[in-house]
Amino acid sequence: MFATIIHAERDIRFEEVPDPVLSTGDDAIVRVVAACVCGSDLWPYRGVTPTVRPHRIGHEFVGIVEQIGPEVTAVGVGDFVIAPFYVCDNTCVNCRNGVSTSCLHGGWWGSDDADGAFADGAQGQLVRVPRANGTLVATPEQPAEHLIPSLLTLADVMGTGHHAAVSAGVGPGSSVVVVGDGAVGLCAVLAAKRLGATTVVAMSRHPERQALAREFGATHIIEERGDEGIARVLELFDGVGADCVLECVGTKESMAQALGSTRPGGTVGYVGVPNGGPELPVRTLFDDNIGVNGGVAPVRGYIEELLPEVLSGAIEPGRVFDLELPLDRVAEAYAAMDERRAIKVLLRA
Amino acid sequence: MFATIIHAERDIRFEEVPDPVLSTGDDAIVRVVAACVCGSDLWPYRGVTPTVRPHRIGHEFVGIVEQIGPEVTAVGVGDFVIAPFYVCDNTCVNCRNGVSTSCLHGGWWGSDDADGAFADGAQGQLVRVPRANGTLVATPEQPAEHLIPSLLTLADVMGTGHHAAVSAGVGPGSSVVVVGDGAVGLCAVLAAKRLGATTVVAMSRHPERQALAREFGATHIIEERGDEGIARVLELFDGVGADCVLECVGTKESMAQALGSTRPGGTVGYVGVPNGGPELPVRTLFDDNIGVNGGVAPVRGYIEELLPEVLSGAIEPGRVFDLELPLDRVAEAYAAMDERRAIKVLLRA
Repeated sequence: MFATIIHAERDIRFEEVPDPVLSTGDDAIVRVVAACVCGSDLWPYRGVTPTVRPHRIGHEFVGIVEQIGPEVTAVGVGDFVIAPFYVCDNTCVNCRNGVSTSCLHGGWWGSDDADGAFADGAQGQLVRVPRANGTLVATPEQPAEHLIPSLLTLADVMGTGHHAAVSAGVGPGSSVVVVGDGAVGLCAVLAAKRLGATTVVAMSRHPERQALAREFGATHIIEERGDEGIARVLELFDGVGADCVLECVGTKESMAQALGSTRPGGTVGYVGVPNGGPELPVRTLFDDNIGVNGGVAPVRGYIEELLPEVLSGAIEPGRVFDLELPLDRVAEAYAAMDERRAIKVLLRA
Repeated sequence: MFATIIHAERDIRFEEVPDPVLSTGDDAIVRVVAACVCGSDLWPYRGVTPTVRPHRIGHEFVGIVEQIGPEVTAVGVGDFVIAPFYVCDNTCVNCRNGVSTSCLHGGWWGSDDADGAFADGAQGQLVRVPRANGTLVATPEQPAEHLIPSLLTLADVMGTGHHAAVSAGVGPGSSVVVVGDGAVGLCAVLAAKRLGATTVVAMSRHPERQALAREFGATHIIEERGDEGIARVLELFDGVGADCVLECVGTKESMAQALGSTRPGGTVGYVGVPNGGPELPVRTLFDDNIGVNGGVAPVRGYIEELLPEVLSGAIEPGRVFDLELPLDRVAEAYAAMDERRAIKVLLRA
């Protein structure tokens, strides 16, 4: 089969690799139907995270189960399945506590830390799924073609945007600011609206992303950044800031934007992978009782809640995909996202 | 009248000062019945916070209203009142949001930032109370003598311990660890128990404090600190840590202890004044979805909730006072707390 391998900064190749084989009894082989490129894939692509040696990449996919190990009962051959961006058993104490990203027996795509055998990266034709009983979620039936993009978002970006909103405590009547207009930020707008927020501010300076944010439920757009952006937010919210601020980028600047936009007693829900920091300014948080909550999103646990709304069409998070390419043109997908020509690229296998 | 003035490191004097006078229309003059020394008063006492010039000190008191300005309606002359450790109007947007410590028109005892005129420090015979309508809470009637210590804790330590528990999300069934066995930590044990925690671990190596923690509801005591302390906590809680950890000290070491004791997806509720840091390690928080919530405790808003239980004797937070001195021996009170001969010293005016 063929799979995506990153060799170095800006060197993405679709290469022949060995077919995966069942190895552990509770694993499955899934034929990928659609995968995609994540904002966090751009860190190694841009060389911000060094690529020491070539390795598989990609962690978001949906597909059809081709083979299952003898212990797999949760999914069957032929099922259409959603795979979260990590592996989990869904039974350990952390999974039961709703933090399946900290699963005691979990791991990551493209590595062998989940069950000792290699789990393929997701930007390939086939993937061996460790701990398939806990990791995979099957749809009730084969989904209609037009639902594939939205189903794929449940692997990461929609669940992650939802986690930002949940972590910030968004509920009926909340005032919300979303920092970041990438796919996660846009999904966070949708999630905040869905959870009952009255006011949802999208911070964005890109007309297409602003338009989608509005369709997802944003009531206001703020184009300014930094101190000027914060001033605009305070102006909107009694001079004190919003109840809940969803940080969906992960840089020092975006976190500062988020903290400055939160009212005293409010909460920052953050899901942007902090790339080398920043540390949080505890005295600022302390003085105004600003809470900081969130982290790597336990999306596996959110699939059951969000799936029915995707299947019914009540939410259409798949609209964040604004470019579709065949899987073998994966290198173009990275370039399009790197150059911000696309919000998010869907790869068809 | 006489009031306490800190002149320099370890130089506390009870000196004659001018009597306060009504100044603004919505202020009151209160004759102090009891005051006390706070752990945070020890920062300037020890020279950790420099004392640039002599100034009034103290921020916890209860007393009897002697005079009120023409705009004061919430309390009357002769009322027994509890004063939180800060001034607030209790009507601004931050107060309405439950964060009266960030009152837009608030201020601090011993300064003139609340209404432009000087607010006395609390370790004195008389105190001018700015914004008396918002700041003071009167008891329904003159309280019995034995209730004075517990009423005094509503000015700070009991409300602060409660805030740690509320910020960490303690509720029925929670597992809780309390870092810090000072008056706030002990009150946090009491607050966690009151809010329904099933397991409450007090981290303490002092027999008297351990005993009081047990009486306040601690189910376990852990004497170890640092990595050893964390290992003991993890052992107790499924190897992963507690749901809620209440950080009641404010040092780098205590925050590290708290973060290391929290399970993935759990929350640190912190109320220890961070003395010059530390910054929070965002990547550690992110990887395990550990939330950090809390800050300077908005105790004014908790008085109504806690007061009935103090008056009925259902809770006795005043037991944290293990030494009582007349107000004019305030310097001895500082020394006793500094040398850890007393948990907390009550000063009778």
